[in-house]
Amino acid sequence: MKQLNIIKIGGNIINNPAVLTEVLTDFSNMEGLKILVHGGGRKASQVLKSMGIEPKMINGRRVTDETTLEVVTMVYAGLINKNVVAQLQALDCMSIGMTGADLNSIQSHKRIVKDIDYGFAGDIDKVNGKAISALLSANFTPVFCSITHNKNGLLLNTNADTIASTLAVALSDFYKVSLKFCFEKDGVLLDVTDDSSVIVELDKAKYATYKNENKIFDGMLPKIDNAFDALNAGVQEVFICSTNALKADYFKGTALVH
Amino acid sequence: MKQLNIIKIGGNIINNPAVLTEVLTDFSNMEGLKILVHGGGRKASQVLKSMGIEPKMINGRRVTDETTLEVVTMVYAGLINKNVVAQLQALDCMSIGMTGADLNSIQSHKRIVKDIDYGFAGDIDKVNGKAISALLSANFTPVFCSITHNKNGLLLNTNADTIASTLAVALSDFYKVSLKFCFEKDGVLLDVTDDSSVIVELDKAKYATYKNENKIFDGMLPKIDNAFDALNAGVQEVFICSTNALKADYFKGTALVH
Repeated sequence: MKQLNIIKIGGNIINNPAVLTEVLTDFSNMEGLKILVHGGGRKASQVLKSMGIEPKMINGRRVTDETTLEVVTMVYAGLINKNVVAQLQALDCMSIGMTGADLNSIQSHKRIVKDIDYGFAGDIDKVNGKAISALLSANFTPVFCSITHNKNGLLLNTNADTIASTLAVALSDFYKVSLKFCFEKDGVLLDVTDDSSVIVELDKAKYATYKNENKIFDGMLPKIDNAFDALNAGVQEVFICSTNALKADYFKGTALVH
Repeated sequence: MKQLNIIKIGGNIINNPAVLTEVLTDFSNMEGLKILVHGGGRKASQVLKSMGIEPKMINGRRVTDETTLEVVTMVYAGLINKNVVAQLQALDCMSIGMTGADLNSIQSHKRIVKDIDYGFAGDIDKVNGKAISALLSANFTPVFCSITHNKNGLLLNTNADTIASTLAVALSDFYKVSLKFCFEKDGVLLDVTDDSSVIVELDKAKYATYKNENKIFDGMLPKIDNAFDALNAGVQEVFICSTNALKADYFKGTALVH
């Protein structure tokens, strides 16, 4: 099996053009097969506001009504995704921008309403690993934004971390997948006030302990849960790290381990 | 050589959801290799207006300033292109949405300013026929919107008719290409007030005569010039016709001939 690198970058990187350019340069220099998954950043909210619409968030998650679905489709799949692709092409990376609708690559359903109605949010049902694999075999580099579809004509807003881990799991049937969730810090910190306190290896037992001791909390929890889900489902390697980890000579990061 | 159908549909079809659905159904039922190229429609102007910006047009062509470039990228490459792809996937057509940046498929340069400054308008330099051909060989159906790039990170707004004819010419190295420009009428009319007066075959001599006699004029002229350019550059078949011509049992249309 060939190696495949899947790199997730968050909205904070998208928001900062200088950082984004550096990250895309490092990504384009990575050898071998690779996929980029990017978050949305603040642009969708800016566009909504410029149209006189106040963005709605509950627990830090966007509520996607009909107009918001239009705007996130425009901003994520159009403006951001295609600008990322154009920048990668300028760096001679043979990229191709994707939503889950393209090649029916990621099929989802509209989230069932329990307590909170998130509107047009998509929960993933399946990945078309064969079609994505055909792109990779042609030495193309797919660049996914956080839009999927329900195979019935409806686009849906979908969490980018979940897209990255679901792609990694599905493509593990075809490749040895290394999955990196990149964010601002060098990894999961044992002490949030100390950037050098990166946990080098995190297993489930340690994770439970640190959670109980309140050393790991808040936004890190869904990120780590997502990462463990991928590892448990057969992904070869899963890291939580900074975008510096895309550089060949940089070895910091938290490895999730069994 | 295999047959390849390239179908261009205009903004009027994009503007009408019921018509668009019928057209996409007919397109998905077409046998063999195919590419769809779609125009923009009125949505970009609506989005600009909702942001308090008045769209600028000169001689019926959009002037693309920086904000307009953002909006057309969002609307053409995001909202419209991905909704078309999602609809085609619902019809089991294995579509993939494309700009010229994706796979460096259509490279252009920012139009040189002569009399009028159209801003971020792209004039096409070259097509990556090999990459598009790789998609077709995998039985994927590319769906192009009217955005290209300059291979230096800049996206550019580009006429969809020109994209269709340039793709047709470049792909004639690999396929027997049949190019159809679809619009509201059944073909080029000898009498604009009579929808049944379709010119069945149009050669350059007849075209010159009808132009002199003022029977063909206005917006039809660039469309026909574009179509003749494609025919002269080696495209097997070029038609100007209605979207009904996508139906297997419908034979009306104007064939451009040598």
